[in-house]
Amino acid sequence: CRHLAFTDCGYWTTWLGELCHWTVFRCLAYALFLSFHLSQGTRDYNPKQMAIREKVFNTIISCFKRHGAENIDTPVFELKETLTGKYGEDSKLIYDLKDQGGELLSLRYDLTVPFARYLAMNKVTNIKRYHIAKVYRRDNPAMTRGRYREFYQCDFDIAGQYDPMIPDAECLKIVHEILSELELGDFRIKVNDRRILDGMFAVCGVPDDKFRTICSTVDKLDKMSWEDVRSEMVKEKGLSEEAADQIGQYVSLQGGMDLAERLLQDAKMSQSKQACAGLTDMKQLFSYLQLFQVTDKVVFDLSLARGLDYYTGVIYEAILTQTGPEGVSVGSVAGGGRYDGLVGMFDPKGRKVPCVGVSIGIERVFSIMEQKAEASAEKVRTTETQVMVASAQKNLLEERLRLTAELWNAGIKAEVMYKKNPKLLSQLQHCEDSGIPLVAIIGEQELKDGVVKLRTVHSREEIDVSRAELVEEIKRRTSDV
Amino acid sequence: CRHLAFTDCGYWTTWLGELCHWTVFRCLAYALFLSFHLSQGTRDYNPKQMAIREKVFNTIISCFKRHGAENIDTPVFELKETLTGKYGEDSKLIYDLKDQGGELLSLRYDLTVPFARYLAMNKVTNIKRYHIAKVYRRDNPAMTRGRYREFYQCDFDIAGQYDPMIPDAECLKIVHEILSELELGDFRIKVNDRRILDGMFAVCGVPDDKFRTICSTVDKLDKMSWEDVRSEMVKEKGLSEEAADQIGQYVSLQGGMDLAERLLQDAKMSQSKQACAGLTDMKQLFSYLQLFQVTDKVVFDLSLARGLDYYTGVIYEAILTQTGPEGVSVGSVAGGGRYDGLVGMFDPKGRKVPCVGVSIGIERVFSIMEQKAEASAEKVRTTETQVMVASAQKNLLEERLRLTAELWNAGIKAEVMYKKNPKLLSQLQHCEDSGIPLVAIIGEQELKDGVVKLRTVHSREEIDVSRAELVEEIKRRTSDV
Repeated sequence: CRHLAFTDCGYWTTWLGELCHWTVFRCLAYALFLSFHLSQGTRDYNPKQMAIREKVFNTIISCFKRHGAENIDTPVFELKETLTGKYGEDSKLIYDLKDQGGELLSLRYDLTVPFARYLAMNKVTNIKRYHIAKVYRRDNPAMTRGRYREFYQCDFDIAGQYDPMIPDAECLKIVHEILSELELGDFRIKVNDRRILDGMFAVCGVPDDKFRTICSTVDKLDKMSWEDVRSEMVKEKGLSEEAADQIGQYVSLQGGMDLAERLLQDAKMSQSKQACAGLTDMKQLFSYLQLFQVTDKVVFDLSLARGLDYYTGVIYEAILTQTGPEGVSVGSVAGGGRYDGLVGMFDPKGRKVPCVGVSIGIERVFSIMEQKAEASAEKVRTTETQVMVASAQKNLLEERLRLTAELWNAGIKAEVMYKKNPKLLSQLQHCEDSGIPLVAIIGEQELKDGVVKLRTVHSREEIDVSRAELVEEIKRRTSDV
Repeated sequence: CRHLAFTDCGYWTTWLGELCHWTVFRCLAYALFLSFHLSQGTRDYNPKQMAIREKVFNTIISCFKRHGAENIDTPVFELKETLTGKYGEDSKLIYDLKDQGGELLSLRYDLTVPFARYLAMNKVTNIKRYHIAKVYRRDNPAMTRGRYREFYQCDFDIAGQYDPMIPDAECLKIVHEILSELELGDFRIKVNDRRILDGMFAVCGVPDDKFRTICSTVDKLDKMSWEDVRSEMVKEKGLSEEAADQIGQYVSLQGGMDLAERLLQDAKMSQSKQACAGLTDMKQLFSYLQLFQVTDKVVFDLSLARGLDYYTGVIYEAILTQTGPEGVSVGSVAGGGRYDGLVGMFDPKGRKVPCVGVSIGIERVFSIMEQKAEASAEKVRTTETQVMVASAQKNLLEERLRLTAELWNAGIKAEVMYKKNPKLLSQLQHCEDSGIPLVAIIGEQELKDGVVKLRTVHSREEIDVSRAELVEEIKRRTSDV
């Protein structure tokens, strides 16, 4: 936008134009100065946003722990070669570090590749783990829709050699639980299988070496019309019109277990061994999903492709079906799948560890929750302070500090104003503003009597409590906090 | 080390040497291949380490919340210019991102400069906030001593115009609380003031333009002897021998409020207005620390300098006084101070916001806690799973999955094996290994009777519980988890 204005300015060639050019330039320079403090596509989280973020994380972490997951963490940057060749066409979006002497490093693009590297490096052959961390993509940010260059992923993965589709079904159960608990409105989880896609490409006459690139094009069906996707396949990727049209018929199909059964009988599809393996597993998956009672939200959708190279089996993606406040769909909030070959790429002997996992894209969820919080009358508390230690009289700073330290030492969350003689009103006002429920007021008389005046902020009720009983009384009155 | 071996190899010039060279080269190449997966100075956290990390973070966050702090977050990279000119001699350790078109970016070096940028950008004039995040320094890693290139900082800062030394005292109280609660052994908190240092430099005859560089040299006193520090001052930095010797007398002084009082009477020191202001505040600080009952660990130490440029008043640093297992001191675990000028550097009009804060360097704490966990017999649990759903009989996978989903939906943390027919022994073994306290066993008979055999892992006791009462029974038996 800034650049645009600058270019437009170039049209002015008269003296007036030059003057204008200069004015615009100065305005731009000022705007740059004011906005130069934060890098494009990134954001700060203020206390209110952090309070919402903590709530969302707690929901997600509770779910992961309920499913028995362990937690791991990996560095924010990896050796460049670790990330190379794992992301297909998206590799251009990887952030590299400057070569300052030493190794060539890149910021992680997701948590899946570092996880696979971790498993190979530590010779871990089975684990159920979660990992919540920021990842980095040099994409075009669309921050109003929750698209950033730095954003959180909440990943849950199951690695190990197990019977088919059981861990896969648990991943979908987890997505169902989390999206239900976050109360973001209705959602759908689309499911497909890379083997079904590849089998479909084969029987439709797509040359082997075009599978991945045609797959990338199919992946755009959630953003582009079929006509545009077809045109990209034919004109840009050189696919025959017949092949494209046959693909078109399949990718319009949606259903459940019934669709998997029908396609197993399909004259063309059943010619592909790969497709049949995928479809048989799809049937099995749906039978487990029925046991988990989550089939109401899951759709077998042949148009789902997912961009990343490393998937080998089941793939899935969750979308919120309600549109946002501007009528824009927030789109995908979770995605994942099976990647049985990735760990082997990091093992010196190529030993494979089958993996399946899901990544919750929490940034869009934050956007929605923030908008909900804005719209709601309920105030978001940004601290957990239980009591404010205050005084109406002068020269009691030391007594206030002494009492505050007593409360801290007893585990009470307490605040005190950093002023020698603050006004009682401003102390009470701070409690109102930040939702502190209680005030412990001391004055000469209270000190003499060995009591504290405990005031309930919302009711303005005040009672005298002995110093000895103060901690218990505060705990009793804030036990719901 | 790798490079060293390679260079040594160059000495071989005979044919035997060449052969050896080649063998060494191959060994090295293999070592490189095996170790190429993680960047130097960074680490993964495995589930056990994460369990310890979570415990440490909980202690720290509880303390920050007890003191009424809000939470914020900032991006991992900032515009390069945001970090420029804030860190003095340490600036060479900043990681830059590669110029891939667009802005010049750097990884954050600490959380203080981003905090100041945040305050200026959002025109926040008072806040008490904490921020826990990773920072990046291209330093020589010494990972056995907990020195990494990527490491956590846990920062607590108070911004705002308040009466002197009250927020400063709270920061020290927080360090005292956290280091006491983490039970890392005895510790000391050294305190000094930049104004006292600058006043001391002035009265000792250090030229104004050498204050910062002499300050950096004084900062090395915790790692170097006075003789070496003196020599660096005189030979490298061109200070006169007399000035160096006068500094030497002061920096050997340690004490409490009494030392501040004595120095206020000191013939030379009292000539400096700056030093007097610092010393008066130091007396005030100690009076508040007495109220907070933390003077047992706090020492006014004139040799404390701290490397960073941005400090303007009180500075402090906490060290663990016990040596590590190899007799090595782990050194500083927390540091901070007052920086009243930093926010103004980011404000278009230079408006200042006084700030004071502390940063807990948690990596060294992790190292100690890990070593303690290794040494202790107690097993660290890496999951919170309450119950394992198991079966002794074949063909009950679907029943196991159904029961597991029931438990998940009731909020119970449950696991199930991803095998069609796992052996009961291997299911029980998994419970032993990962500390799962209960097993819910189903068989044909139990299904017929509508019950579950609930087994307590450590006692091997088994009782039948009706399906309807299972959730409550599990909650009752794991209420301490």
